[in-house]
This record gives sequence, C-alpha cells and structure tokens, in this order.
Amino acid sequence: MAGDKKAVLLLSGGLDSATTLAIARHEGFECHALSFDYGQRHKDELKAAAAVARAGGAYEHRVASLDMGFVGGSALTDPGLAVPEVPTTGIPVTYVPARNTVFLAVALGWAEVLGARDIFIGVNAVDYSGYPDCRPEYLTAFEALANLATRAGVEGERFHVRAPLLRLTKAEIIQIGLGLGVDYTPTLSCYAPREGRSCGVCDACRLRAKGFAEAGVPDPAILI
Amino acid sequence: MAGDKKAVLLLSGGLDSATTLAIARHEGFECHALSFDYGQRHKDELKAAAAVARAGGAYEHRVASLDMGFVGGSALTDPGLAVPEVPTTGIPVTYVPARNTVFLAVALGWAEVLGARDIFIGVNAVDYSGYPDCRPEYLTAFEALANLATRAGVEGERFHVRAPLLRLTKAEIIQIGLGLGVDYTPTLSCYAPREGRSCGVCDACRLRAKGFAEAGVPDPAILI
Repeated sequence: MAGDKKAVLLLSGGLDSATTLAIARHEGFECHALSFDYGQRHKDELKAAAAVARAGGAYEHRVASLDMGFVGGSALTDPGLAVPEVPTTGIPVTYVPARNTVFLAVALGWAEVLGARDIFIGVNAVDYSGYPDCRPEYLTAFEALANLATRAGVEGERFHVRAPLLRLTKAEIIQIGLGLGVDYTPTLSCYAPREGRSCGVCDACRLRAKGFAEAGVPDPAILI
Repeated sequence: MAGDKKAVLLLSGGLDSATTLAIARHEGFECHALSFDYGQRHKDELKAAAAVARAGGAYEHRVASLDMGFVGGSALTDPGLAVPEVPTTGIPVTYVPARNTVFLAVALGWAEVLGARDIFIGVNAVDYSGYPDCRPEYLTAFEALANLATRAGVEGERFHVRAPLLRLTKAEIIQIGLGLGVDYTPTLSCYAPREGRSCGVCDACRLRAKGFAEAGVPDPAILI
C-alpha cells in the first residue's frame, strides 16, 4: 500500500524466502523482490520465485542476470559436479562461492536507489550451518560494509540486513509461515529438479520433508 | 609463468587499472583479469580492457555480464542522467550504487575457486574522494567480509584486497606505470566517449589530462 516503508527482499522461490516475504509484509514493508539468473542449473527456481512473489504480495519482482558461469566451483552451477544424494558434513559442494555476497551487493545497490534501508534475506544458520555466508557474523559484517559502501551510509543513514529465519528450525519456519497465511504451493526447494519435479533426495528436499513432518502438516507443493 | 601466485584483478581498461596490472605483475602475480558488462553506456571500455589485459600480460581476461539496469541511479548506466561537463563536489552523479561491492563480490567468488587470495583493484582515494566505495575503510571492511564469507576464510586462509594506487596522485600513478613499462596507448578513461573518442570534458578526462601534464609526458592514448 502507499506509504509503506520499502525493503529489498532476496527471493529464491523456496519456502524460506516465501516465509521471509510474509514476515516482511507483516512488518509493513513494501517488498521489492529480487531474484537472480546466475547460471544455476535449473530455471524452475525462477518460475517459482515469480509465483511466490505474486502469491506473497510483493510490490514488484525483478530478476538480475549475472553470467559468472566461468567461475564454477559449485554443484549448483557447474555441470561437472554432482548434487549429492546422501547427507554430507562440512561445507557442502552445493555452496556457491561468494553467492550471498554477490546477491546482497546487488540488493544493496537497488536499495540505495529505491530509498530502502532494509534488506531481507531468508538465510538460516540451523539447517545451513555449513555455509559460511549464512552465519550471523557474516551478516553483521555485510551490514558494516553496506554503511561504508554507499552514499546513504556516508550521509548517516543505516542499512539493516534482516534475516528473520536465522535461528529457526525448518518446522518453526513453516509454522510461522502458516500463521501468516503463506501458501507454500508454488514454492520449490529442490537443488536438482527433473522435469519439473523435486528429486526428493538432495539436502534441500530432505530438510523440507523433515520440516513439514515435524510441523505436522502436509507439504502442498505442486512440484513434489 | 608457471608457479606464480595467483591474483584476481579488476580491470576497467583505464590507466589506473593498467597500472595496477603492471604492479601486480611486478610483484610476481599470475593475473586473472576481470571486467564487467554491467549496462554501462559505452562498450568501448570493454574493448580497452581486453587490449590492456593483452598488453599488460594478464594470464587471462574474463567479462562477467551483469544486467542490473533496472537499478538505475547513475549517470554511467542511466540514460536519463547526464554526465557532467564541469567539476562537481560531493558524491558525483557518476557514482554507481554499490558498484565496487558487486565487482569485489564476483572477484571474491572467482578468487576462491581459482585458489587466489589476492584481489587487486585500482581505486584511488585522492581523485575519487567523493566515492564512498573508494575509501580505505571501505576496502578494509570488504576484506573482513571476504574472510567471513568464504570456505577458504573459514578454513583459516586470508584474502587480501590490494589497492596499490589508493593514496597516489594521477601523476604519480603515471610515473610508476611508465617506470614499469606500461603502454598507456590502449587505455580509455572517458565516462562518455563519442564515436570512439574521449569527450575531453568529463571528470575522468580532466583528471587524466592533468595527470599527464603534471607527469610531464604526453598522453599516448589512441582514443583521445
């Protein structure tokens, strides 16, 4: 609605970012949703993001295209690396080098131009403890950088990186989302869907299934 | 040459990045040069970058494409904003929101995959004192972020953001470059070249002309 305070929100189209959108809307933000076409193996994620943005009441949804395929080094972008079908420990092969830093940097540029000072990101330090750029100390460091990097920061304004899911379990995220009326039907979590269907065996599929089971509700996703 | 330590180097094709390349090569780095096609108004910059990479002995040169044109807000990317033809004070209209943060983030991802721990950037806090993301404290903050953002950082390695021109005048930069054998012929500094020729009146053209005058050497650029 007119007069809402503005936020930029990173939207992958998974259940975490759908819930983050609902939380930001609940807090009264006009949400400018941002997704990336960054050479990920599947584009179903972008279709899901567009559907989630519509369903969740985003003010607008933009897709930034970033061709950094030459970087490689992740199972999510490099055809030479397999997405694991068994649980792994440590930093997963699905970690994309510096991904959240790139995403947050673009979000910051857009936020500065829009006059938004809040950037929402659905990262989680419980399920994704192996990803260095999902840790609270990383987000704090980005916030410090944002305030040094920008015209607005120099002029004394403050950017805030908001990660409301940071310390929640997947079941808690789902319960909060359902409480806010999130429709998880269009969301997609799978790292490696085939022919529009989730694989059911990657880390993301397993975490999602466990989350819905613990929350005691069926997963309504159309893609599983 | 084989066995050199690796560095990622941000290369715009201007005289600053040409000099930075020469310094990094002089320090024994195998330089992986990175330029961006980010919706800047003119592509002559990318041609100049490729020529500078070849002339300066870069190991390779890659161009990352980033379509964030919807962000707007800068005279360098937004057709609705004019590049000023008189000197300005404060943060210039040619400031691109979060540009160096985006560039450094992509450089960081590539560095991590390459096994490079040094990232060279030709920023300068003398001539570009109006750009928040050219200040020493900004670079220090990015280095801190890099070490939290990455697998390598978590494993105890350290990234270094190297800005060897940070406190030099344009004349000093040119003198150092000439001492290292830099050929400034293919470099391009202008913000708004027309038909392959520098405009001669934008901030970048003025700073360059002043630098060559103070260094006491003619500007050999083919584009002016």
